[in-house]
Amino acid sequence: MARVAVDAVGGDRGPETIVAGAAEAASAGIEPVLFGPPGLDTLGLPLVEATQAIEMDESPVEAVRAKSDSSLVRAVRAVAEGEAEAVVSAGSTGAMLAASLLHIRRLPGVFRPAIAVVIPARLKPVVLIDSGANPDARPEHLVQFAHMGAVFAEEILEVSDPEVRLLSIGEEDEKGNQLTLDSHELLRASGLRFTGNTESRSLLEGEVDVVVTDGFTGNIALKAIEGTIRSLLEGIRAEIESSVRGRLGGLLIRPAAQRVRHRLDPETYGGAYLLGLRGLVVIAHGSSSSLAIANAIRLAARGVEHRVVERLGERVPERVASPQG
Amino acid sequence: MARVAVDAVGGDRGPETIVAGAAEAASAGIEPVLFGPPGLDTLGLPLVEATQAIEMDESPVEAVRAKSDSSLVRAVRAVAEGEAEAVVSAGSTGAMLAASLLHIRRLPGVFRPAIAVVIPARLKPVVLIDSGANPDARPEHLVQFAHMGAVFAEEILEVSDPEVRLLSIGEEDEKGNQLTLDSHELLRASGLRFTGNTESRSLLEGEVDVVVTDGFTGNIALKAIEGTIRSLLEGIRAEIESSVRGRLGGLLIRPAAQRVRHRLDPETYGGAYLLGLRGLVVIAHGSSSSLAIANAIRLAARGVEHRVVERLGERVPERVASPQG
Repeated sequence: MARVAVDAVGGDRGPETIVAGAAEAASAGIEPVLFGPPGLDTLGLPLVEATQAIEMDESPVEAVRAKSDSSLVRAVRAVAEGEAEAVVSAGSTGAMLAASLLHIRRLPGVFRPAIAVVIPARLKPVVLIDSGANPDARPEHLVQFAHMGAVFAEEILEVSDPEVRLLSIGEEDEKGNQLTLDSHELLRASGLRFTGNTESRSLLEGEVDVVVTDGFTGNIALKAIEGTIRSLLEGIRAEIESSVRGRLGGLLIRPAAQRVRHRLDPETYGGAYLLGLRGLVVIAHGSSSSLAIANAIRLAARGVEHRVVERLGERVPERVASPQG
Repeated sequence: MARVAVDAVGGDRGPETIVAGAAEAASAGIEPVLFGPPGLDTLGLPLVEATQAIEMDESPVEAVRAKSDSSLVRAVRAVAEGEAEAVVSAGSTGAMLAASLLHIRRLPGVFRPAIAVVIPARLKPVVLIDSGANPDARPEHLVQFAHMGAVFAEEILEVSDPEVRLLSIGEEDEKGNQLTLDSHELLRASGLRFTGNTESRSLLEGEVDVVVTDGFTGNIALKAIEGTIRSLLEGIRAEIESSVRGRLGGLLIRPAAQRVRHRLDPETYGGAYLLGLRGLVVIAHGSSSSLAIANAIRLAARGVEHRVVERLGERVPERVASPQG
């Protein structure tokens, strides 16, 4: 039974959406505990009252320090204090990072936590790390992100000896910016199965298991993919609806189109792990629907079940201390 | 009549494809001149013989210096020496940049040339600059890219007072990496109609006229969009073909799907301008088909017709010298 602390306030669609998602995820194996304002209707789920809320536009570090009774900070502290095994929030990513660093703290040896997203690519799932926690990162950080991504692929995606590539602007070793050129050399000596650079155009193909990058580049790539999927499907829909022939065809292909959309929809995978901490933290999209929240909670429970934090604790410091291992 | 020097050797599909594209583009207003090996069948177009070829994996600067009789260098020199008004190559972007800097040279006041790509977005075309020339760039470079992109939008896309945004990982001013944070401040003081950050998820929507970024980030975003379009259309096709119902629907929506694909296909816009030089340089995709080459040559001719180089020469140095203008 995984006890998951859920921040009921974070997210663009209001607490009702979060509560609905939590109720949907509740099962024999998952016990969501909601953190939100007194009097919130939790559909029968347990509520821990929190009188403050962190807004999306607040400075993360200041908000986390000033609002110790916010739903986000209280939910994070529940993991730090052993009252929950994982935390899920659709609130500010920066505030989640700040609260997690302050209360849950980093695993020994970890320089910086990083966000790992599983991209539902065509051939196989791809772990993209870092997807947004570290807008500025150094080569030694990228090497550690790669190690964390590899452990994640092994433990959660059950891939043995995962193949790792570096996101860059050309497959040739010498293509990239100074960060990727320096990281490339370190990754060659990392002991990982590092097979060179990959381009963002291959991300949805799923040719490798782990793609490592800094948080700025990873976030740009991820959002470009998401936006393109949305714009393209919308463009096709509008064209189809502009003729009778198209509308009839559209009815016939609807099941096929929905299968593709379902596979690629960010709501299907729901959230991302913030890796490198002493507790399990899942960050959901700010715009999450109740389905996305339910899936983020399930993702958190899966991480608990697979003991992701313990595995990272056992293996990342060892790998970093002994790069050839 | 625009005389366009065309490198017949660059590109993954061989000289025949380039020649076919040049023949397709040849018209009353466009005179392509091919640069390639002696004896090349040019379908009746003029040929300037070049005995060397620059390969994609060569070091750009060394290759350009060592191979003065390569098709790429000879085509670039034709513009530098006034024998042609524009040059088009599907060869190495790095070699085109190196040859252009060496022979055509920068416009006065320009720090670095940048690649401007027109993204065929939903609401209106968007100029993305830099799309790959400068993997590492400084804030003052980004400001100049923004000025060049704005002039391009005014002169070629005929947008008055174009709206400029900075590509980052959040719309809030304080979201980004150090480069975007520093650039944001400079752009606020640039005299451009700068309206803040934009995210990569909006690029295909077309909400603004110019999106400015460094060459690494721009290239990552552009290739993520291209790859997603390809993977998504392929995914839909495969799903549709897996059932009789889907195949029938697929036949009915084919015209609609082709209109969308045609609008978004990189082959439709064909190439990208390398801006900031004393001559017009168009870079085509390495994988260009003959249609893409023809469109890249037409793009070059349009730049000649609209006097893009002269306009940049008149306006960019002035704008950079007087940031409040």
